[in-house]
Amino acid sequence: MKILVIGAAGMIGQKLLPHLKGNAVVAHDVVAPQVLPGVKAVVSDLSVPGEAEKLLYHRPELIFHLAAIVSGEAEADFDKGYRINLDGTRLLFDAIRRIGDGYRPRVVFTSSIAVFGAPFPPAIGDDFFHTPLTSYGTQKAIGELLLSDYSRRGFFDGIGIRLPTICVRPGKPNRAASGFFSGIIREPLAGQEAILPVEEGVRHWHASPRAAVGFLIHASKINSELLGARRNLSMPGVSVTVGEQIAALRKVAGDKVAALIRHKPDPVIMKIVEGWPRNFDPRRALELGFRADDSFEQIIRIHIEDEHGVRSSP
Amino acid sequence: MKILVIGAAGMIGQKLLPHLKGNAVVAHDVVAPQVLPGVKAVVSDLSVPGEAEKLLYHRPELIFHLAAIVSGEAEADFDKGYRINLDGTRLLFDAIRRIGDGYRPRVVFTSSIAVFGAPFPPAIGDDFFHTPLTSYGTQKAIGELLLSDYSRRGFFDGIGIRLPTICVRPGKPNRAASGFFSGIIREPLAGQEAILPVEEGVRHWHASPRAAVGFLIHASKINSELLGARRNLSMPGVSVTVGEQIAALRKVAGDKVAALIRHKPDPVIMKIVEGWPRNFDPRRALELGFRADDSFEQIIRIHIEDEHGVRSSP
Repeated sequence: MKILVIGAAGMIGQKLLPHLKGNAVVAHDVVAPQVLPGVKAVVSDLSVPGEAEKLLYHRPELIFHLAAIVSGEAEADFDKGYRINLDGTRLLFDAIRRIGDGYRPRVVFTSSIAVFGAPFPPAIGDDFFHTPLTSYGTQKAIGELLLSDYSRRGFFDGIGIRLPTICVRPGKPNRAASGFFSGIIREPLAGQEAILPVEEGVRHWHASPRAAVGFLIHASKINSELLGARRNLSMPGVSVTVGEQIAALRKVAGDKVAALIRHKPDPVIMKIVEGWPRNFDPRRALELGFRADDSFEQIIRIHIEDEHGVRSSP
Repeated sequence: MKILVIGAAGMIGQKLLPHLKGNAVVAHDVVAPQVLPGVKAVVSDLSVPGEAEKLLYHRPELIFHLAAIVSGEAEADFDKGYRINLDGTRLLFDAIRRIGDGYRPRVVFTSSIAVFGAPFPPAIGDDFFHTPLTSYGTQKAIGELLLSDYSRRGFFDGIGIRLPTICVRPGKPNRAASGFFSGIIREPLAGQEAILPVEEGVRHWHASPRAAVGFLIHASKINSELLGARRNLSMPGVSVTVGEQIAALRKVAGDKVAALIRHKPDPVIMKIVEGWPRNFDPRRALELGFRADDSFEQIIRIHIEDEHGVRSSP
């Protein structure tokens, strides 16, 4: 199968690529993605008119659209966020539409739980409305609407998946305001101090990178007739407080590791996080076969296995 | 007060203008709006870059953004719908943003119940999600998201109001698929036959032009702090079936008038209408003081008073 991955240099894109072996894959990003032999890497700016058309030259049957400016940066740079997250997405969707010879690829779009804004019910159901409290969330919500409309009109066969916050993110921190959720696990496991900018009572919604890749693969194969007109889904996840995250870390890695977390309140991050979802009731996604991690402990063990190359007990 | 009305040549715009007397009003549309002496009429295409900037030259403190390609036309002409309803709105919002010297007008944006798509609960609550089943509804839902984000960032002070279907629309039919809801009242009252393209059991959500203008005026004056971050509201209305509409017409105007309605099913319109909202529970708007018509009978009487110049009994 011919597959195009947009945003292939990002963390999820990099984790996804090895799962696409055996296909004709084009991996695109604004910086060079690392690719295995046989995968074609393309570097360009999707938000420049004409670039999306070039990416479609080989008529991929499956397109993963993972590219985005993350929440912190989209909030700091209004124009850049709208240019990449809204215009870039629309240029891609329009480029597909304009081919117009019956070409109708599956498009898997990564949306975000940032489309939701507080106040929330105890668990956000599948028909709860979108009142994002960040420009990033606004741009993702608009992407979802476009995906639905373009799919309804038959231009492509889209599915949008709202990823939980990915935890534990490997590598360096990015500019997402949610970065600390990973940092307080990743840094201590690497023997380094980590800053916790919020209170331990803060509850949030998580999925491991491995679960996220599983969602993408499942979304690429699902029978879209089961989705009807409602093509955007909240993915399942694990709802835990920061305190529960720390307790899980202590259980998996011991007191000394957990003691590397230093609480240093950051009012800016606290305010952003206050508006974020804490818990979901993602019934449709579960019925459609999407599967989350079992627990936050499992999320930590996955990180140790995948990033430290150690199979952790039990 | 300096007021800009965009979409002033439309039916609602024309009804709104006389209520703005005593203010410095600029009335804009793509065709020349009829205006009273003292009102400045401006004709241009809002979707052409640079035009929105010109409209803001006098720094209006209040902007009504009513301009839109209606549902039927936005569905028939994909590019035109997105260009006017999405790009035009965004160009306006960005032009306001770019002034950037503390200018922060109130922006009243007319959204639509077309942001909702079936299946529905018995009455659509204030936190029900947006799954539009038309491109028009998609464009309005995106406009709402932009309005919220631009307001949150302090670029302007926006409020979006989701108008029920306006009934009875005076004048000629437009290209809205909802046109028949008005046609089956307006045409018979004018002694003409009217086509009913759907079954009498179809339920829908209505407001008179007079109620709609009342919503706009109220939205222009409301204390926006009461809205919080959720700046888009479903307006109150009257939920009736087509059969109840006809019964009300019979009561107000007699059997002979009601007998001018001819049932001629149109599968295309039936399918569009099937996806439309039927009933709402618009609690927030009611709490904020928005007031609908009392009944469909009153809606008919308002039409007779305002369009035929006759005060109808009782």
